[in-house]
Amino acid sequence: MSEVRLTLEEVRDTAMRGLTKSGISEENAAVIADVMTTAEQDGCKSHGLFRMPGYCSSSRSGRIDGKVTPTLHDDAPGVIRVDGHHGFTAPAMAAGRPVLAEKARSQGIAAMPIMNACHFAALWYDVDALAEDGLVAFAFVNSRSFVAHTGGIRKLYGTNPMAFGWPRPGKPPMIFDQASSASARGEIQIHLRDGHDIPEGWAIDPEGNPTTDPEAGLAGAQLPFGGHKGAAIAMMVELLAVGLTGCKFGFESAQDENTDGGPSEGGELLIAMDPARFGGTGESGAALAHAELLFNEILQEEGTRLPSDRRYAARKVTPTEGITIPKSLYDTILGYCED
Amino acid sequence: MSEVRLTLEEVRDTAMRGLTKSGISEENAAVIADVMTTAEQDGCKSHGLFRMPGYCSSSRSGRIDGKVTPTLHDDAPGVIRVDGHHGFTAPAMAAGRPVLAEKARSQGIAAMPIMNACHFAALWYDVDALAEDGLVAFAFVNSRSFVAHTGGIRKLYGTNPMAFGWPRPGKPPMIFDQASSASARGEIQIHLRDGHDIPEGWAIDPEGNPTTDPEAGLAGAQLPFGGHKGAAIAMMVELLAVGLTGCKFGFESAQDENTDGGPSEGGELLIAMDPARFGGTGESGAALAHAELLFNEILQEEGTRLPSDRRYAARKVTPTEGITIPKSLYDTILGYCED
Repeated sequence: MSEVRLTLEEVRDTAMRGLTKSGISEENAAVIADVMTTAEQDGCKSHGLFRMPGYCSSSRSGRIDGKVTPTLHDDAPGVIRVDGHHGFTAPAMAAGRPVLAEKARSQGIAAMPIMNACHFAALWYDVDALAEDGLVAFAFVNSRSFVAHTGGIRKLYGTNPMAFGWPRPGKPPMIFDQASSASARGEIQIHLRDGHDIPEGWAIDPEGNPTTDPEAGLAGAQLPFGGHKGAAIAMMVELLAVGLTGCKFGFESAQDENTDGGPSEGGELLIAMDPARFGGTGESGAALAHAELLFNEILQEEGTRLPSDRRYAARKVTPTEGITIPKSLYDTILGYCED
Repeated sequence: MSEVRLTLEEVRDTAMRGLTKSGISEENAAVIADVMTTAEQDGCKSHGLFRMPGYCSSSRSGRIDGKVTPTLHDDAPGVIRVDGHHGFTAPAMAAGRPVLAEKARSQGIAAMPIMNACHFAALWYDVDALAEDGLVAFAFVNSRSFVAHTGGIRKLYGTNPMAFGWPRPGKPPMIFDQASSASARGEIQIHLRDGHDIPEGWAIDPEGNPTTDPEAGLAGAQLPFGGHKGAAIAMMVELLAVGLTGCKFGFESAQDENTDGGPSEGGELLIAMDPARFGGTGESGAALAHAELLFNEILQEEGTRLPSDRRYAARKVTPTEGITIPKSLYDTILGYCED
């Protein structure tokens, strides 16, 4: 497969050009381009330029409004709500994040529901800036229905990721971002493309039988990770991301037309806490210093790593070596850079 | 096995008598007796009178102070901290809960770190009263180290349960309470007692090899549920329950002497949110009404249930039929009812 090598600056410039040529405002495009550039920087290819066609085509088709300005609603001293006005989530997130951080500092804990927005980015990105800013942060987002409840056979939950970030003094934060499904949907699609069976436990066929056939699994339903406990997490994410934002549950938006490769509309909930306002930990900074003992304890064992370490390893290399994408993807993206 | 049948009133009276005779104050005993009585009422035997010997012996030995009055510290508008002063967590929880609920209503979201307390109760109990009160609630608690990090072989995390409650109009709340280990430690001990192998995936032996031998699993380390994703949840619980409370991580308290069957000291974090303050959901009550659509969607499939349904089924029977406990346990408890 022929590949194209780009510097991170070229990634950002190419993204900006394609997004703005596709009807996304300069301001919104800058935020979205940063999401994709950061993903490429961190070796997270599935959220890098791979997403360009989805952003561009869903803006060009008019299904998602790339020009909207998100609005903020001060619902309560600890709640800042962002209305994305049926645009992409990344600009809504960027508009609300400084207020969420300020509220977390003044109140100790704060929440940010994001409504009427289409999430299409890596969820770790959403907690990254908060954790870099010294805040403990959760993010929960739902998606279209692909995953069955334990004992059920219908697609009910989204792959519903949750992300959690913990700040580390002098280091990038510890962040995990994990789907509540046993596998990403894209992984099943790749197994299908390559003619490989999928592992047991990833999916059931339309009759509810366990299957290793990727086609049957895509037609049936994905399974939550870790059995009924993962299903409980999937349900929790659905309740938090939808129930507290007033958006649509995955099964409610499943029938919405969506063939342009872009995201469906869903909700997102962020929660941020300022450890300095949790007085049991002693002086400011003590909570984070204490947590380093746990991270040290984890890492002193051979064969262990922290969830975000692979991204941070990639981050050391890509600013000098650049990144590569398939030539076919690059050509598609160049097409979006035309009028 | 000979059994004794008790009414729920007898459960409460017996618990009160044994706890107060063991040096626990009337006020604290009333809270702890309610935890055990509610557990028996809900068919949750592992947190019912089964816990009496642990409460009584750890108070009688003086290791845990059953007479302390927890103190509240208003750390921030959204944070109420409870210092349990080295007593049991249940009285600390009871002391702080009304303030947490009031803060959640006034701020939209609030947190309650509990420090210097020994958790020995069902975690669902801690979110139950908040969810019955119309609040969405999380609880996270750590324990002594029993669980390895992915790739590691040492006991590092506690079995670290998290609980989540969502209020339901006109119905008891949806609550799940799940360990981040693949199994409860007690389940492995029961397999050992009965001479049965444990399922694969529950534990590793002291050399880090997968094992189905319960003795080797207890000597080695338990495994998180769902592989690396469960390990991330276990780590998150440890960071929230300890990092934000200033208590000890499981591996730090592992060396504390603890042979009286009672709990070790740890931390707990509660988070409560008032859905009525999340303005995106429309008029008050709309968020909860909307969530009922999701619960209906789950339950319309044959073979599904909500996490708390088994407890609520038991609750319909025990007030009239009473409960049973082994005669040997009852005799032990009667011993604690003496001076």
